[in-house]
Amino acid sequence: MQKNSFGLIGLAVMGQNLVLNVADHGFSVSVYNRTAERTHEFMSGEAKNKKITATYSPKEFVASLERPRIIQIMVKAGGAVDAVIAELKPWLDEGDIIIDGGNSYFSDTERRTKELESNKLRYIGMGVSGGEEGARFGPSLMPGGTKEAYALIEPLMSAIAAKAPEDGLPCVAYIGHGGAGHYVKMVHNGIEYADMQLIAESYALLKSTINPAPEEFHEIFTEWNNGELSSFLIEITAFIFTKSDDKTGRPLLEMILDKAGQKGTGKWTSQNAIDIGAPVPTITAAVDARILSSMKKERQEASKILSGPKNNYADERGKIIAAVRDALYASKICSYAQGMNLLKRASEEYGYNMDLGEIASIWRAGCIIRAKLLDDITRAYRSRSDLPNLLLDAGFKHAVQSRQASWRFAVKTAFELGIPAAALSASLAYFDAYRSGFLPANLIQAQRDYFGAHTFERIDTSGVFHANWKEK
Amino acid sequence: MQKNSFGLIGLAVMGQNLVLNVADHGFSVSVYNRTAERTHEFMSGEAKNKKITATYSPKEFVASLERPRIIQIMVKAGGAVDAVIAELKPWLDEGDIIIDGGNSYFSDTERRTKELESNKLRYIGMGVSGGEEGARFGPSLMPGGTKEAYALIEPLMSAIAAKAPEDGLPCVAYIGHGGAGHYVKMVHNGIEYADMQLIAESYALLKSTINPAPEEFHEIFTEWNNGELSSFLIEITAFIFTKSDDKTGRPLLEMILDKAGQKGTGKWTSQNAIDIGAPVPTITAAVDARILSSMKKERQEASKILSGPKNNYADERGKIIAAVRDALYASKICSYAQGMNLLKRASEEYGYNMDLGEIASIWRAGCIIRAKLLDDITRAYRSRSDLPNLLLDAGFKHAVQSRQASWRFAVKTAFELGIPAAALSASLAYFDAYRSGFLPANLIQAQRDYFGAHTFERIDTSGVFHANWKEK
Repeated sequence: MQKNSFGLIGLAVMGQNLVLNVADHGFSVSVYNRTAERTHEFMSGEAKNKKITATYSPKEFVASLERPRIIQIMVKAGGAVDAVIAELKPWLDEGDIIIDGGNSYFSDTERRTKELESNKLRYIGMGVSGGEEGARFGPSLMPGGTKEAYALIEPLMSAIAAKAPEDGLPCVAYIGHGGAGHYVKMVHNGIEYADMQLIAESYALLKSTINPAPEEFHEIFTEWNNGELSSFLIEITAFIFTKSDDKTGRPLLEMILDKAGQKGTGKWTSQNAIDIGAPVPTITAAVDARILSSMKKERQEASKILSGPKNNYADERGKIIAAVRDALYASKICSYAQGMNLLKRASEEYGYNMDLGEIASIWRAGCIIRAKLLDDITRAYRSRSDLPNLLLDAGFKHAVQSRQASWRFAVKTAFELGIPAAALSASLAYFDAYRSGFLPANLIQAQRDYFGAHTFERIDTSGVFHANWKEK
Repeated sequence: MQKNSFGLIGLAVMGQNLVLNVADHGFSVSVYNRTAERTHEFMSGEAKNKKITATYSPKEFVASLERPRIIQIMVKAGGAVDAVIAELKPWLDEGDIIIDGGNSYFSDTERRTKELESNKLRYIGMGVSGGEEGARFGPSLMPGGTKEAYALIEPLMSAIAAKAPEDGLPCVAYIGHGGAGHYVKMVHNGIEYADMQLIAESYALLKSTINPAPEEFHEIFTEWNNGELSSFLIEITAFIFTKSDDKTGRPLLEMILDKAGQKGTGKWTSQNAIDIGAPVPTITAAVDARILSSMKKERQEASKILSGPKNNYADERGKIIAAVRDALYASKICSYAQGMNLLKRASEEYGYNMDLGEIASIWRAGCIIRAKLLDDITRAYRSRSDLPNLLLDAGFKHAVQSRQASWRFAVKTAFELGIPAAALSASLAYFDAYRSGFLPANLIQAQRDYFGAHTFERIDTSGVFHANWKEK
């Protein structure tokens, strides 16, 4: 029997689309799914007449693959991944490769990599971004784990990955050992949360000031998408304004309940950032905003009790549109600066040895946060790999500083009119704190030393000091 | 041999001061410390001529106590607590009580409570706030764990606890089972972080606008301490401005390096809040601000590269001082609203059955966040125990709404002049989001449905929907 070159377990939409993508690129694929029914459906539907072989047990699945086997798992993060690995293990041979393509928590991937490597197997934890469409026609792939396994999967992964529009390079690169790939995917998702929240606040700011009609919103975002803000999320936002509701004929967006859901990766980004000491206030503001949005009923009650300022926006329309655009772009740069900085810290903390420029480059296509900006970030790190912060790159410095006045105007307008803009303002507060040679933390140290003898350092000499604050 | 009624292990400053406090209230105490030297020092120093007995082994220590034994551990949170428990266990009898008075993570306390209860021992995880001075003369105590143990320790704890100035009640109450006491202490510390950051930003805002001399700062904070802001932290801040540096003769505050340290409880508050879905943006801004402050060298470099607006504050001094005062108080209310709400969510999540009014009442004295405000919070929850949010209490609603204009002026001024005010602005953004019947999360749901088929809810009917966004 002819053996296949790639195996995939888990035929939900993402898994099916990845299989079709791999088969389209000339690789033969074996598939296995826990329930045979779904396999039958897939085989008689989209998989028909392609180099795809159905199997109905882990044993049959493994036996159908060339050695060393390349097996990708696409199941729900958590216990299901461990269960599938346990099912596979009895049938595998030394050097076989398991790839986890779900959104696993990076420390779970660390653990699994160690366990499988100690069994002479090889493990890759791979972030896959781009949603269903990315999986089908080209995702951004963030593999980490057993390094020597990467050379064996690279041809296939390079073939199925998205290609960057700027240079045609495939959006895949080995990220680092252990959980590095899933870590990068986690941060990617955190940045995605921030991107979406910044766009939502920009929409709210315009709506609550000049209240554009849906067609005008479409035009504004379409124009923004042609400039420095060019990105997948701005592009789909422009489209979203044009969609009508079949039921009411009104714009569909207006019929959608303002309760945002979340699945965990944004939350993990904020929590891990606090753990390793790399603040991501814009991302955290986005996570908090989703939670606050989900408290719809309570907010509706509160809105009857707590009133804000009268909405009395008086400046011309053009001024606020331009200011919101600048605020969105400058805030986005701050959010990416925070995300890249988190990767830098994580790379030190966990010894991942990450190449930040390469990571930015594989986000240029395929994934949800793909944007023109990512090509600029790639170039910034290629010209200086130890850049302490994106904001210190000459290009980004200019981009932010030249927009500073209108960014401040937009944020001040939001606070003046009582329009919630937690992520736009957290970005500006981050910028202001980061560029402050002096912060009022001397007072915090004085308080801590006063009540808890926690000691302080001095500006004029090194060492650790304690004062008897009650004596003058 | 006469047996003692209370035992304490761990003679660092906090432990020593608690022992002296207990002995002062007529209870006999046994002490034990890992290194005998410290015990000798203590016994020949402050413990001299008091009802305090030194012991030099866990066996001797346990044997010296009345049954059921009441043993408090004051060692570093983490493995040291487990180690001390393991040392004690062989000598204990059924019904004996161990109290952990350190800053243990609440889930560790959950685990230890279960383990010890299954051994027929009783366990109390107790938050102790008030620093060294509180421990010596009256701390705020937050005990949780084995409920029936509380009745046995209550007389002693009520005796040594701080007494609320308003009604003389002792600042101690049983909080709930398992880790509830340590959970409340964790949130107390998160609120403390926010209080300190809000005060620091207020200081920076005044300094960067009207630049008061130290004596004027002292007067401003002294006056604030006589009004609605009356609190321990405002009081010591006023004092801090008066302290001179012995070395240079300049105000000591100006000689302190602006790098704030932290020990973990603030961080845990932010992380757990995200986990259980109760946003605490002001506390998180304070945690992030400490991390940013610690990057002093990088900020100094950045300050040479990234410039902000010119400092051109032109309004009169009185206006900004009044606005900062209002901003500080309104932001503080938002921060407490977040903290109390986190306790409400945690009480649901972990089944703690917490009494929020009682918790606010035991924070009225002894602890670092003691403030006039806490008596108002106590009254708010006593008059309505299921209050959804502090901001919806009539008194707090009025307090915030009447300060809204000057709060907004202070935050706008900070953004206009480029003065970092992440916690003040996060509080205002929280207020604006909380009182919004509508938030732009409908756009986020539309985006998520567009790229990931995550579905959305509608405003006009129940159910879950998915749209084909590419069709108009």
